[in-house]
Amino acid sequence: MTEVHETIASFRAALAGAASVGFVPTMGYLHEGHRSLLDAARAANDVAVASIFVNPLQFGPTEDLAAYPRDLDRDLAMCEAARIDHVLHPSVEEMYPFGTPTLTTVTVASISAPMEGTSRPTHFAGVATVVAKLFAIAGPCRAYFGEKDWQQLAVVRRMAADLSFPVEVVGCPTVREADGLALSSRNVYLTPLQRAAASSLNRALRAGVAAVESGERDPAKVRAAMHAVIDGVPEAEVDYLEVVAADTLERLDPLAGTLRLLGAARFGRARLIDNEGATIPAPT
Amino acid sequence: MTEVHETIASFRAALAGAASVGFVPTMGYLHEGHRSLLDAARAANDVAVASIFVNPLQFGPTEDLAAYPRDLDRDLAMCEAARIDHVLHPSVEEMYPFGTPTLTTVTVASISAPMEGTSRPTHFAGVATVVAKLFAIAGPCRAYFGEKDWQQLAVVRRMAADLSFPVEVVGCPTVREADGLALSSRNVYLTPLQRAAASSLNRALRAGVAAVESGERDPAKVRAAMHAVIDGVPEAEVDYLEVVAADTLERLDPLAGTLRLLGAARFGRARLIDNEGATIPAPT
Repeated sequence: MTEVHETIASFRAALAGAASVGFVPTMGYLHEGHRSLLDAARAANDVAVASIFVNPLQFGPTEDLAAYPRDLDRDLAMCEAARIDHVLHPSVEEMYPFGTPTLTTVTVASISAPMEGTSRPTHFAGVATVVAKLFAIAGPCRAYFGEKDWQQLAVVRRMAADLSFPVEVVGCPTVREADGLALSSRNVYLTPLQRAAASSLNRALRAGVAAVESGERDPAKVRAAMHAVIDGVPEAEVDYLEVVAADTLERLDPLAGTLRLLGAARFGRARLIDNEGATIPAPT
Repeated sequence: MTEVHETIASFRAALAGAASVGFVPTMGYLHEGHRSLLDAARAANDVAVASIFVNPLQFGPTEDLAAYPRDLDRDLAMCEAARIDHVLHPSVEEMYPFGTPTLTTVTVASISAPMEGTSRPTHFAGVATVVAKLFAIAGPCRAYFGEKDWQQLAVVRRMAADLSFPVEVVGCPTVREADGLALSSRNVYLTPLQRAAASSLNRALRAGVAAVESGERDPAKVRAAMHAVIDGVPEAEVDYLEVVAADTLERLDPLAGTLRLLGAARFGRARLIDNEGATIPAPT
């Protein structure tokens, strides 16, 4: 039986003394992507827990904070089905009793700057701050994040390492629809026509991977291969399509090593992101 | 017997499972002010620990990082005498394996801005970052800080609260020489003449307290009362003398409530800080 905690103190007390804790921080409106994280946390740990909190710090002033989809009953049913022991579901006032923005901010330079950081300048500070707080609340644990938010995963990994949180950050593969569309809570915003067009984002990324795998080492040409797929899709408004070093998110020219291809595009109201990996073997 | 740990992992392992941990983070070169913190940690906790680490993040480019006094043998003898169980004494490489500045930075707005924040713009970000890391390393504990660094104490309190660290931040009274000079590792820089003059900083602050206690509610006049004491001292070069709200460090006009009077002055090579409290009773 999943126990729901409205307060940090109650959630923290419930975790004390566990041999191992698997923790899935979420903003709710859970889908099968989250379910894969919950299952991974459940499989590898003594106690499996999640948080459901739509974090205002990570939304910009013109973004969809108020409209962000919520369905607590369905979320808790999924946690129950995944045999999650405890869920932290705090109010904004419980998390930020002094209001927002908070005086304390955690930033991660460099990794936060490109791509999502350019489009959403305060986003990753909001993410790093709430995740640092959630790590301080949960204590030693394994924390599960989806690879769909690759840049977020890189920011969280570095923040946890730099601040020595006793947390093992575990990245889990993106869960996709049959046509390649990455599962996202924001997919609910899509009209049927936009939904059909949205798979072009993943197709573009896979075209970039194919270019790398066929020997292309010029990042501009890999980007062009991605654009060639999606630029003609009338429903798609591309924000960026990039190929960078997988861990530092730095641009490389020529391309080398372990790469990540990342993209963001708007389909109507929904701003969607996705990414794929490609590795260039070291010369022998 | 005090056990010294060069690695975060070893120190963390030594603390695991303690019923209560008292933690004294220091930059070493310990004096009787630190001793009072060690004694407080020892008296109130199952396990008493300290860290000795001269944190490069909190020194500005023109400050005294390289010259900062160090005496590990004497520090460990004091820890031994105070019956401290464990000391973390990491290298800079152990604390910051990716180099400095770190990508991750913890900032505390508003409280960090005036006074020391004006004179040392990156100082409190360096403090908040290393203390957050030390709190993540130590886990649940009581952490002891001297009131001598009042603004630092306010920054650390707010950082710990905002990020929900399971840490009770305990402020301990400033330990002073007979003439009022606050103990500081930097007092070692003082020549005999400067040492004699240095008590003027505390005398100035106490003159400000006396002004408040005699009914003065105009902050400019309280500042003037402080300056009247120290401005004529030839060895003293005043940086600031302020009277602010004790917790938020905001200026108030007229003065009201729980106040802190804070000052900084150079005496030769030594930049010294000090503070005193004053409370204006609420009208009845």
